[in-house]
Amino acid sequence: MGAAPVHAVSVPYGRLGGVRKIHVIGIGAGDPEQLTLQAVGALRGTDVFFVLDKGEVKSDLVRLRRDILDAHVPEGTYRVVEARDPERDRSAGGAAYSPAVGDWRSARADVYERLIAEELGEDESGAFLVWGDPALYDSTLGILEEVLARGAVDFTYDVVPGISSVSALVARHRTGLNRVGRPVQITTGRRLAEGFPEGVDDVVVMLDAHQTFRRYAGEDIDIYWGAYIGTPDEILASGPLAETAPRIERLRAEARERKGWIMDTYLLRRRPREQ
Amino acid sequence: MGAAPVHAVSVPYGRLGGVRKIHVIGIGAGDPEQLTLQAVGALRGTDVFFVLDKGEVKSDLVRLRRDILDAHVPEGTYRVVEARDPERDRSAGGAAYSPAVGDWRSARADVYERLIAEELGEDESGAFLVWGDPALYDSTLGILEEVLARGAVDFTYDVVPGISSVSALVARHRTGLNRVGRPVQITTGRRLAEGFPEGVDDVVVMLDAHQTFRRYAGEDIDIYWGAYIGTPDEILASGPLAETAPRIERLRAEARERKGWIMDTYLLRRRPREQ
Repeated sequence: MGAAPVHAVSVPYGRLGGVRKIHVIGIGAGDPEQLTLQAVGALRGTDVFFVLDKGEVKSDLVRLRRDILDAHVPEGTYRVVEARDPERDRSAGGAAYSPAVGDWRSARADVYERLIAEELGEDESGAFLVWGDPALYDSTLGILEEVLARGAVDFTYDVVPGISSVSALVARHRTGLNRVGRPVQITTGRRLAEGFPEGVDDVVVMLDAHQTFRRYAGEDIDIYWGAYIGTPDEILASGPLAETAPRIERLRAEARERKGWIMDTYLLRRRPREQ
Repeated sequence: MGAAPVHAVSVPYGRLGGVRKIHVIGIGAGDPEQLTLQAVGALRGTDVFFVLDKGEVKSDLVRLRRDILDAHVPEGTYRVVEARDPERDRSAGGAAYSPAVGDWRSARADVYERLIAEELGEDESGAFLVWGDPALYDSTLGILEEVLARGAVDFTYDVVPGISSVSALVARHRTGLNRVGRPVQITTGRRLAEGFPEGVDDVVVMLDAHQTFRRYAGEDIDIYWGAYIGTPDEILASGPLAETAPRIERLRAEARERKGWIMDTYLLRRRPREQ
């Protein structure tokens, strides 16, 4: 992706004549009320919504996106173009993580390039709707940069920030991300499995399919956990990790069974050693 | 503050009869369009807004808050109660940071307690408007917990998450907070002065009055910097730190001179060592 050029950037949130325009819109963690006014404005300025379906398992999420359009954009003013998001090769474990992600991103870039070139008129605006905030563990911006770098199709794009699942999680627990003057780290389950991060006592974990928090149940750590945050299925649990981990395992297994998929996030907060 | 109890929490965003209700509302980083629909709803459900003025220097921010109310809440449906936010003793340096913050928080708790007890009727809803997201480097939640713990005044409260300056910053730079599968740390200028955080290559720095990024100008690091993000005064700059740091120093000095105050945030991104 390389470094951005050394100059002040000014990216207008309007349409430009003759150049395809893409909005990457953060639509919040699941609660349609967590859309920003800016996001609603960008939705209304969009001609074509690209909906990439990851398969049956997450069709709830595709429906939620449809509901957002129905609620905020006048019917008949836009088109929805659906495409199948290439599957990621999750069989590659451990060190192979990044290359597998690279191949996957390249396959997705093929899809995005085709969508933009074939489905979006030169004077039109397209949009990708991203759960949470496009800045956190989302690949849309990287893929768009890759499509631009290939040079086959030209467009400009802007980013509308959204409420991340991280912000939504701690708001529901009515706690902060950091403690006074202290840092907070946001990381993945895979990274947490390699050890509790150095130099921080507050760690937010995303993309953890393996309930890695269980490894730390013997330590003086509180957990603030949530699944399907902001949706009617929301589940929250918090407390000392030793007592709360088994409870979360149970809640998680029940929810997965019931819905067929789960998206959850948690904050681990190490208690001060001396005080 | 202690750990939350071990049970699923469900905090409704409505009013409760006979119990004072407080909304802590994240109002975004400066762009009034970054309010969420949930925040607008909470604003409209509020009887009394508590506006704590930190003094002349940030009266721009007080005015921006007033503008948000004017734009979204029907006139005559609310009261605004202003109070002077106690000054923090910034003369205490280094290790004394936390105690000074503790005293300051206690003095603020006195103010908040009085405001809630004296200015809010028992059936009314009050609100504190917080720039960015109440979860990041904001003390409102901690102060409310302290007021509750004192037991002199009873109320319930909820938290409406907001677009943080962190999200707004990277959206304007059209980049992510993390790289694929990698962690990101959010920290303070004071912490960064102690060394580049261990185990992360992406670091967001807040509350840095001393341009601590300059210490790392000799390293292979890119910076994504922004001030007054989302406001008409917004300034952005990005690029390799060695070239960009002097430019930011200049922009920062000019802006401070012009406006009398500055609020800025930046992401430091260490370039991969091998690739």
